[in-house]
Amino acid sequence: MPIVVDNLLRTVTGDCEQIKELLATEGVRIEQIVSHGRASPEGFWYDQPEAEWVVLLKGSATLLIEGEPVVTLRAGDYLLIPAHLRHRVEQTSEDALWLAVHFRDQTKLSSRT
Amino acid sequence: MPIVVDNLLRTVTGDCEQIKELLATEGVRIEQIVSHGRASPEGFWYDQPEAEWVVLLKGSATLLIEGEPVVTLRAGDYLLIPAHLRHRVEQTSEDALWLAVHFRDQTKLSSRT
Repeated sequence: MPIVVDNLLRTVTGDCEQIKELLATEGVRIEQIVSHGRASPEGFWYDQPEAEWVVLLKGSATLLIEGEPVVTLRAGDYLLIPAHLRHRVEQTSEDALWLAVHFRDQTKLSSRT
Repeated sequence: MPIVVDNLLRTVTGDCEQIKELLATEGVRIEQIVSHGRASPEGFWYDQPEAEWVVLLKGSATLLIEGEPVVTLRAGDYLLIPAHLRHRVEQTSEDALWLAVHFRDQTKLSSRT
């Protein structure tokens, strides 16, 4: 299988949120998410069956997580969102770029986020 | 469980390769790797039981992958290294920072690296 290299930080133009699936296996899914300043739709909350480890690689963002204080993120910040913990993206900068790793977490051994 | 945010891009000082495990589950392991200009030891090749999706977030690097042309990486470049595909880090810049996701790949559905 030839090795293929692509780039995560290349500028993605557009005016709505764009999600690119970089890898998908039965157990793990990796996505690049370009926010273009968009928040989650009004009243919308994510309630995901899988855990999500997510890092903001560029820009800034504000997350709302049910039962938690407001989470403000700057470039490089990462966190683990357990499965079914309701959350929404309240605000993002125009250049916000995320890398998200979704996985099943029934057997989580440790987390140092 | 309180949400904890840490930062991936914070400067890590030192003069040898530093690996920080950010998440470990039975199926997926996420690591931050700070190279500090170090290559793999002379004659050493990685031969890993798990697949590795890896992105170079800062700096530049050169990888040797068995049976492949030399792979030169710049910031943002990512690739998938299948399990047991022998590879080594031939060269890295002083500021090289990697994010690596290790996972079992028996059930790989798709890869768009």
